[in-house]
Amino acid sequence: MFKNIIAEIKNTTPLVHCITNYVTVNDCANILLACGGSPIMADDIREAADITSVCSALDINIGTLNKNTIESMFAAGAKANELGHPVILDPVGAGASKLRTETACELLEKIKFSIIRGNISEIKALTAGSSSTKGVDADAADAVTPDNLEKVIAFAKEFSAKTGAVIAITGATDIVADSEKAYVITNGHPIMSKITGSGCMLSAMLGAFAAAGKTNISEACAAAVCAMGLCGEIAFKRMKNGDGNLSFRTYLINAVYNLTDEKLKEGAKYEIR
Amino acid sequence: MFKNIIAEIKNTTPLVHCITNYVTVNDCANILLACGGSPIMADDIREAADITSVCSALDINIGTLNKNTIESMFAAGAKANELGHPVILDPVGAGASKLRTETACELLEKIKFSIIRGNISEIKALTAGSSSTKGVDADAADAVTPDNLEKVIAFAKEFSAKTGAVIAITGATDIVADSEKAYVITNGHPIMSKITGSGCMLSAMLGAFAAAGKTNISEACAAAVCAMGLCGEIAFKRMKNGDGNLSFRTYLINAVYNLTDEKLKEGAKYEIR
Amino acid sequence: MFKNIIAEIKNTTPLVHCITNYVTVNDCANILLACGGSPIMADDIREAADITSVCSALDINIGTLNKNTIESMFAAGAKANELGHPVILDPVGAGASKLRTETACELLEKIKFSIIRGNISEIKALTAGSSSTKGVDADAADAVTPDNLEKVIAFAKEFSAKTGAVIAITGATDIVADSEKAYVITNGHPIMSKITGSGCMLSAMLGAFAAAGKTNISEACAAAVCAMGLCGEIAFKRMKNGDGNLSFRTYLINAVYNLTDEKLKEGAKYEIR
Repeated sequence: MFKNIIAEIKNTTPLVHCITNYVTVNDCANILLACGGSPIMADDIREAADITSVCSALDINIGTLNKNTIESMFAAGAKANELGHPVILDPVGAGASKLRTETACELLEKIKFSIIRGNISEIKALTAGSSSTKGVDADAADAVTPDNLEKVIAFAKEFSAKTGAVIAITGATDIVADSEKAYVITNGHPIMSKITGSGCMLSAMLGAFAAAGKTNISEACAAAVCAMGLCGEIAFKRMKNGDGNLSFRTYLINAVYNLTDEKLKEGAKYEIR
Repeated sequence: MFKNIIAEIKNTTPLVHCITNYVTVNDCANILLACGGSPIMADDIREAADITSVCSALDINIGTLNKNTIESMFAAGAKANELGHPVILDPVGAGASKLRTETACELLEKIKFSIIRGNISEIKALTAGSSSTKGVDADAADAVTPDNLEKVIAFAKEFSAKTGAVIAITGATDIVADSEKAYVITNGHPIMSKITGSGCMLSAMLGAFAAAGKTNISEACAAAVCAMGLCGEIAFKRMKNGDGNLSFRTYLINAVYNLTDEKLKEGAKYEIR
Repeated sequence: MFKNIIAEIKNTTPLVHCITNYVTVNDCANILLACGGSPIMADDIREAADITSVCSALDINIGTLNKNTIESMFAAGAKANELGHPVILDPVGAGASKLRTETACELLEKIKFSIIRGNISEIKALTAGSSSTKGVDADAADAVTPDNLEKVIAFAKEFSAKTGAVIAITGATDIVADSEKAYVITNGHPIMSKITGSGCMLSAMLGAFAAAGKTNISEACAAAVCAMGLCGEIAFKRMKNGDGNLSFRTYLINAVYNLTDEKLKEGAKYEIR
């Protein structure tokens, strides 16, 4: 499983074009470097397609979207599709405003995504055109539980069949699904929700994993989700008295920096359904 | 004093809409999470009011204002006023450019703020329409000293009476004043001025404190100012040989993460005048 | 050599106006504070010239340029030239898109820069109008090696003669050249390329060093380049088991915070050619 994807990333240093929010952009850049990729951020319409052309993957994150960056998301997405680059969608806060929900839905219509990653409320907002999203966090009412797990898996597979994208629903339990199979992943730690950008960072990393694992995007996506969760566990174990969420962020990115294929294979906790 | 405001924040997880600068935005988000709140950043005019509607407080920070975000500050502010949400103004660099001073003054005219927090030069710029602000730091000539303390307290009370907002003037000595009384707060450490964003972070936190302590904004504001200063002291004590300002930033946010009502009551240093 | 430039920065606290990218802006602000300067970020056209007027130096970084910030770069640059302030250009990603290359070249035409700092591919893109830049990193084909060192030095001196700016080409070996002499600097550590913003941070610091060392910009620039590399070495030595690139960033800025003229003189590794 997961072959030697981390070695592959480190050998090829995939350049990932990120059109992302200004809140967590620095963490996204540093985690891409940590995993062996290389980031470039560019969101002006006059260069969005050019920059995508010199990259290996594109990460579109609507966290602080605005009229200028939205335009660039479409231009870069079209160019990435033309070139066959993996494209990731992170619909941050879809459901929390009309602009976010509509922009995400329009992106889905016009761009072919390889991976769509969000929390359960965000992903629901993409299908329903609405949800109970509370800001950028999943709503408690939407939480994935043992009771509704089967239903959520079926929903993810169906959404994958409809969009052609691998669907990654992340939370306490993560689900990575294509139309036929789903990885149910239990790596991670609750403190990951106490820093801003756990999700954004994962989406940026997905760019590098998808570029290096282009022949099997489902598996590459599952590997990245396991990697992020596992690094959250490793980071939490490093916490000592007096540490808090900002130390955790440092330990998390450090853990990604030190992650190897061997550690990932040993620590990944998932089953295929 | 201060009741159990930290427990209250942690129990209610107030969502705080921040229209803030891109320099310190990540720290603002992480400190909001650290204190028990939840951040959402959104500054496009097409969603500013929508996002404010799903939040409990609004933080307007003019640190890197531009024509798009200014428009959104007014829209979000009007909506927050309509809904009765606490609104915080952080007039970063007021006095350093005409645009900043005028924008801050126009915001004061059109939006009803619950709290206005700045350094003494910034607050003076709001009243005089000008000051000796040097960039984003208070000018030495404006510094609050034992000699002028009475005068500054009177100035803050008067400005509070005029605006209806609690006025928080932060520096070596912090003053939190409504029209009738002032908290003179001596928590803090000089190294806090050696990281970017001490002030911005406090303003973001004020959103969470004001949302949780809505029935007594003066007290909630004083609690947050004491909390920030106290955490600065705790963070400084953690510094060891070779550490510098970036370690201090980590320790500061960690300290907020670990702060409890008990520790705050024990460590708060203030008198009421 | 280098006189007491760090003491001079700490004594004068030069305010540096940065029009820079939103990826590494927070690190730029914190490293400016660490070295003894003070940052202000402002990129709206209505205040760009005003802000520059109250500062001592201007740092123009095209990392996430857009139509609004480009306009402000020209306005601030013109004002800084008028006032005789040192102006730094960091042509991030020049060569990676037409917009970046053309904007950088137009800036060179219209603004008089004191220092131009980039990796070898970026600097080549400024002279050729094109290069093999791969994203924001130097292309391997462009690397400075013992074999081509003489040629690169000659190129840098010539480009300095043409532009009137000190040229800082940073990489494994750094070259700081004016038209007559070149500093060949070997401080630094490869892990510096594993965080985002090593280059941006150096450019921001150059603002403070140039302001404090205005009478000899070549020397001030060489001092800053040595300082950054030396701090990279100090930071790397602090790394312990489990640390990664994010810890390194903390140690790097901490090292700048603790740097003195004595340590710089002792640790600087350069020869003049």
